[in-house]
Amino acid sequence: MSKRFKRDLLPKSKLLKKKKKYIQNAHQQLGLGSKFVASVSEALHEDDVIHVRKMVEGLSEYGLAKLIETLSHSERTKLVQILGDKINPDVFPELNDVVQEQVIESLQEKQIVKIANELDSDEVVEILEHMDEEEQESIIKKLDPELQYQVQSSLSYPEDSAGRIMSREFVGMPDWWTVKEAKEFLLKNQELPEEFYDIFLTDEKFRPSGHIALDKLLRAKPTEYLFDIMDGEIVPIDVLTDQEEVAHMFREYGWRSAMVVDNKDHLIGVITIDDVVEVIHEEVSEDIMHLSGTEEGDVYRSVFSVFKSRVMWLITNLVATILAASVVKGFQEVIAQISVLAVLMPIVASMGGTTGNQTLAVVVRALATKELNSANTLRMIIKEFLVGLSNGLLFALLIGVITHIWFPDYQFMSLIIAIAMLITLVIASLSGILVPLTLNRFKVDPAVSSGVFLIAITDCGGFFVFLGLAKMFLL
Amino acid sequence: MSKRFKRDLLPKSKLLKKKKKYIQNAHQQLGLGSKFVASVSEALHEDDVIHVRKMVEGLSEYGLAKLIETLSHSERTKLVQILGDKINPDVFPELNDVVQEQVIESLQEKQIVKIANELDSDEVVEILEHMDEEEQESIIKKLDPELQYQVQSSLSYPEDSAGRIMSREFVGMPDWWTVKEAKEFLLKNQELPEEFYDIFLTDEKFRPSGHIALDKLLRAKPTEYLFDIMDGEIVPIDVLTDQEEVAHMFREYGWRSAMVVDNKDHLIGVITIDDVVEVIHEEVSEDIMHLSGTEEGDVYRSVFSVFKSRVMWLITNLVATILAASVVKGFQEVIAQISVLAVLMPIVASMGGTTGNQTLAVVVRALATKELNSANTLRMIIKEFLVGLSNGLLFALLIGVITHIWFPDYQFMSLIIAIAMLITLVIASLSGILVPLTLNRFKVDPAVSSGVFLIAITDCGGFFVFLGLAKMFLL
Repeated sequence: MSKRFKRDLLPKSKLLKKKKKYIQNAHQQLGLGSKFVASVSEALHEDDVIHVRKMVEGLSEYGLAKLIETLSHSERTKLVQILGDKINPDVFPELNDVVQEQVIESLQEKQIVKIANELDSDEVVEILEHMDEEEQESIIKKLDPELQYQVQSSLSYPEDSAGRIMSREFVGMPDWWTVKEAKEFLLKNQELPEEFYDIFLTDEKFRPSGHIALDKLLRAKPTEYLFDIMDGEIVPIDVLTDQEEVAHMFREYGWRSAMVVDNKDHLIGVITIDDVVEVIHEEVSEDIMHLSGTEEGDVYRSVFSVFKSRVMWLITNLVATILAASVVKGFQEVIAQISVLAVLMPIVASMGGTTGNQTLAVVVRALATKELNSANTLRMIIKEFLVGLSNGLLFALLIGVITHIWFPDYQFMSLIIAIAMLITLVIASLSGILVPLTLNRFKVDPAVSSGVFLIAITDCGGFFVFLGLAKMFLL
Repeated sequence: MSKRFKRDLLPKSKLLKKKKKYIQNAHQQLGLGSKFVASVSEALHEDDVIHVRKMVEGLSEYGLAKLIETLSHSERTKLVQILGDKINPDVFPELNDVVQEQVIESLQEKQIVKIANELDSDEVVEILEHMDEEEQESIIKKLDPELQYQVQSSLSYPEDSAGRIMSREFVGMPDWWTVKEAKEFLLKNQELPEEFYDIFLTDEKFRPSGHIALDKLLRAKPTEYLFDIMDGEIVPIDVLTDQEEVAHMFREYGWRSAMVVDNKDHLIGVITIDDVVEVIHEEVSEDIMHLSGTEEGDVYRSVFSVFKSRVMWLITNLVATILAASVVKGFQEVIAQISVLAVLMPIVASMGGTTGNQTLAVVVRALATKELNSANTLRMIIKEFLVGLSNGLLFALLIGVITHIWFPDYQFMSLIIAIAMLITLVIASLSGILVPLTLNRFKVDPAVSSGVFLIAITDCGGFFVFLGLAKMFLL
């Protein structure tokens, strides 16, 4: 009771009001109201600067970022220019990559420098990554000295490497300190990161030796050595490791944090789980896009940019399908005599394509997650063959019966299409696994290029088998 | 120097040895050696129990889990039966869902209960989720009382809800305590979770009011109220919220933890970022699989199970393609007279399908990530129309020229196919966005069902437009 009383004495009204506003904003922002967006958009078109500023005023960083993303390309640059220096710099890291690039492009160098100086080094690196080298250097030169150093060293590592996503600001200690020494260090040191959950330990040569969660430190006896209470089960990550590999290790081992080392095995940075959440998400999203021949962020791009990003895939598909058409051309005279073949041939090719794509999707994911490895590849190939065979038998029967009912006048047609279906589905299943495996062996991303090879194989194969059999038996 | 000396006095040899072994294991396990797997597999086939046990002995939980996953279905149940009670229970949560289900099925109830009693409640729930209710209840009855209570209350929430992934073991305190009171509580209380990073605060009615990172607590003055140093910018999550929505909020807001409340707004659990990493990963992987008509975990399933998981999609595809064949059948006499049409018609349909799938992949992802919302849907539809139009014009030109060169004898053919290509690609682009939007409006998962509607539209449309134009102008 006494405690409850104590609480009532606190000036809570102010805080509660602030909290309520935050909650309301957050909910609203998850699905930014279309009416609100429409009225901002209208005010932008009418160049009603005062109204725009007033409407945007109440938004949190996150809310403003969502608004910028939801507006069209021209509206969003206009909004950013109207708000100018009044935009909270923390809005920029919240933006989708594509949108961030567009918005930054519309700013002057002076403005970019001013924004960058308010951000963390990893956020600045994200902004600079999209620029060409000249622009990059020109901006880096104008940054505050400490930020400048951090950004430069981060950019010295390859894109998408551990060195780019790691944080240089972490709490590191020698592992031979006692709990008391550690606590004193934490209390006295004013330059610690704003939030930290783990303390990272090194040996006398600055090599990672383990880490301690803060709660353990809090509850340990003052005389204990960190060495004795630390979690020493660590796998240091080389600074050049690809970020997808890093994300994979976090997911597989269930890590919350990992220590990054340079080529001398010295601890130079730390990656925490929230750094890799975005990587995990992007990695898989990319695979979806690549399998369908598109790119991430199309929602935010201009028509021309989307057109460009999709046209290459369509051109390669055109080549593949012309190849398939050439196969059909070889059987043109058969079709001229038995035009039913033209009716039935798309069925065989389409079922082949669908079967192949099923296998392809599974294999591409299994390669990415390393579920498919040298130890089980052969078994997987055999399994896909058997699945293709089972589906082949089932659909041979189905299409045979359907064809028999549909075209009763053509005696052997149902038998021919049944055999063609069986062979095509087996070829498709095997191609669905062998194509990505082969590309993977030659270090080509199987998500990007498998599809077009697969469609060439299943279309050409389907047409050739069906029309070939028809020529043999019906002419 | 004195500190370095101190370190040398510590008995580090033992620890370092342990650490080295872990690192070695971890690296080995990321790509489990195929030779090792082969020899385990051989020993299993020869029923060489002693050799199997010996080989497996040195593996960590994670390593053993990877081995079990990499073996074939029959081998993996055999291995689990041979190892019997000697398997570390912590191996089971490490297993892929599909594999876990297979392995658990091969165990006796007594064994499952023994394993479950060693695990955390969320891990037990994961195992029980796959069983039918009768089995579930029979096992739950035999669990240790506390675990039993936790598992039962977790299972009382719907599958894939926040209630299932939240942790009931967290450090909660009244927000009117002082820093000193909080620290004393942490030191005295023996029943705290093994690892924690945040302290979660409630008001006098057990409603969430904020949280404090441990490092802040560590560095705060003893007399300060938690209320004054806490981070009050929280959005409580309703216990019934879908886990995908939870993952979305974590990613969007950049949270590390969130507080879960029941319908009385009481704090009943906590979700931390490592709980949602797997959700984020699965959510996107599922979309890839659904877009191609397959399911997760096919690598680990038996041939029959994979066959079953893919056959429905193939049947719906068969229906769609027979529909397209019917369209062709309507033009059978035209094809009989001009067999070149049969050569060219797959090109139009295939390009339509590819174009539609590009848009579909983008839209399905944008719907899942809520990048596409009521405020920008119309703009996106217009954009897709314009992209389809641009691609249509380009490929109309290309295919027109190609056809003119390929079939110089047919005068209007190149014009006809060009027009057909243009119309088909525009239809395909629009269908690629309108189909998933429509399904989404009717609460049907667009990733699952869009593909088959799309292929029906692009195939039928492509054939109809091309053959129809040919009939009009060439006959």
